[in-house]
Amino acid sequence: MTQQTNETVQALIWTGTSLKVLDQRKLPDTIIYDEYQDAAGVTEAIVSMRVRGAPAIGIAAAYGVALSVSRHLAHDAADWQQKVAEDIALLAQSRPTAVNLFWALAQMQTLLAQTLEDPKAAFINTAEQIHANDIAANIKMGEMGADLLAGAKGLMTHCNTGTLATGGYGTALGVIRSAIKRQAVNVYAGETRPWLQGARLTVWELAQDGIPVTLVADSAAAWLMKSGAIDWIIVGADRIAANGDTANKIGTYSLAVLAKQHGVKLMVVAPTTTIDWGIDNGAEIEIEQRDPKELLPACYDHEGSLVSAWNPVFDVTPAELIAAIVTEQGVVLNPSIETMRGIHVI
Amino acid sequence: MTQQTNETVQALIWTGTSLKVLDQRKLPDTIIYDEYQDAAGVTEAIVSMRVRGAPAIGIAAAYGVALSVSRHLAHDAADWQQKVAEDIALLAQSRPTAVNLFWALAQMQTLLAQTLEDPKAAFINTAEQIHANDIAANIKMGEMGADLLAGAKGLMTHCNTGTLATGGYGTALGVIRSAIKRQAVNVYAGETRPWLQGARLTVWELAQDGIPVTLVADSAAAWLMKSGAIDWIIVGADRIAANGDTANKIGTYSLAVLAKQHGVKLMVVAPTTTIDWGIDNGAEIEIEQRDPKELLPACYDHEGSLVSAWNPVFDVTPAELIAAIVTEQGVVLNPSIETMRGIHVI
Repeated sequence: MTQQTNETVQALIWTGTSLKVLDQRKLPDTIIYDEYQDAAGVTEAIVSMRVRGAPAIGIAAAYGVALSVSRHLAHDAADWQQKVAEDIALLAQSRPTAVNLFWALAQMQTLLAQTLEDPKAAFINTAEQIHANDIAANIKMGEMGADLLAGAKGLMTHCNTGTLATGGYGTALGVIRSAIKRQAVNVYAGETRPWLQGARLTVWELAQDGIPVTLVADSAAAWLMKSGAIDWIIVGADRIAANGDTANKIGTYSLAVLAKQHGVKLMVVAPTTTIDWGIDNGAEIEIEQRDPKELLPACYDHEGSLVSAWNPVFDVTPAELIAAIVTEQGVVLNPSIETMRGIHVI
Repeated sequence: MTQQTNETVQALIWTGTSLKVLDQRKLPDTIIYDEYQDAAGVTEAIVSMRVRGAPAIGIAAAYGVALSVSRHLAHDAADWQQKVAEDIALLAQSRPTAVNLFWALAQMQTLLAQTLEDPKAAFINTAEQIHANDIAANIKMGEMGADLLAGAKGLMTHCNTGTLATGGYGTALGVIRSAIKRQAVNVYAGETRPWLQGARLTVWELAQDGIPVTLVADSAAAWLMKSGAIDWIIVGADRIAANGDTANKIGTYSLAVLAKQHGVKLMVVAPTTTIDWGIDNGAEIEIEQRDPKELLPACYDHEGSLVSAWNPVFDVTPAELIAAIVTEQGVVLNPSIETMRGIHVI
């Protein structure tokens, strides 16, 4: 494994004319960036999960639109807006659950409807601003989340919500980074089957930062909670409904139910771009189902196989199981349709 | 994958002079038997997890003692009992949690204290009897367990408790086999990290029997229960305390807590040889911790690594979370120190 400092390892690097995407499927063994010049390439990078994590997907999509504008302005000057609109539609189909993707594309769509003096620069600037704002939001959430952790000795996280999943610093992992600067805590990461984002990405990121971490099988989390080792479970989000119901990586709902039974608190950390104010509750969130191959041994991947797999990528945690939702606009304790209104910025 | 009928695939094959052990670490891709002529070899087969599953471990250990007697009678006639006692001590150290191991070795120890006309034949007969009794117990438990499942449409199991984990037919998987003959049920298997006994062994066994099965990530079980797809979770046991507290594969406690919260019932299926009447409750059960390497990416396996892993192989489910314990001596509903007495055969 190549040792690198945290500064050099970013999920997304914008060169000005292309987007370099770290292939996270190959971590922690190999650090390879793939370079994309158009929206189709960025779409493929999202679909294939080279880049993942709701905020990072949104940022990548914004850069994808900027690339689309640059390309079509140069090659299809007569109907470039039409071509860019088609690329936005393509990017929108890359993954269904993370709402940050649709939020970022909506920003770009709004820009597309305007008369711009220098469209290329305007789209690039907006994408860069989305990226920079995400990092700033993460640092702010890190501090606000850490404020809730006074006295906590054991923190557990699920999936990867760090630099690799965002513009930088991370959401839930940002809170853990901020907490580590203040107090001695033991950090536990769940493996996060089937992609092992915890085992491959989270422990790698933390080790790069010099933070010790203990990996556990997802199924061992309950037994760990029973031992008294965990005070808080801290996770990110892919979409939050207006009442605080939260879609996040499969296994989050399981941890939430188990936490409640063990007196452990659950914190969700996500920028307000993750909130879908258009839906009242989590029942309206589309849950992505991925290929059963991600779970099945290869010998069962054939016509007529008696062995199938059920592979939802996300689940929905009801707001009543969440102690706090931390956003860059503020913290919502005991989230509900009423308390969530406090951070509803229009 | 070689297609075989269920009849031909057994975890353990006794040849009369050796024990053939199916190397379960290589399933489902490869079917390879390793052959052992002495107790040290059988010990290694257990330690390395070529053979696993509490009843199968007990049976293998019994054959290991039979091999020890044959060998030492031939080569160390003067002090063969002493040598066999040493081999029993060796086998006893192979794995700490499954009590069937200690039960089987205690049977052999009792025999060793007796004056026998033909010790070799006596030990072989006893080992074969332990093996045959286990299969008979499983078939009986299968029927009694299935009696509890009238009307059930969705069954979930964890780890592997089938032919591969026992003398044959299986404990929890035996109940599922019996239920399938009576009614239409959907069968779900959890992957069972870190060894993937569910993904590698359980779905393979069921497919060999022509039974369709759906694999799920361990962390998806809660979301599956929430969907209403599961009526019963059916598991085996590695050790059951006198009050019904049950040590079983890591993740069982998690499923038990989640089941309770979702109105799903939990059934434990195990022969009475799994019950440790000498302990009042589960707090006294030693939980085996295995090598962190089973969880960690290889790059973290070095001196000074910041990344470690917590890898308990079992957890303990309190009796109050268990709806029924099914043994060959009868079914205990709502297990407790009082109700468990009904199956206490001395």
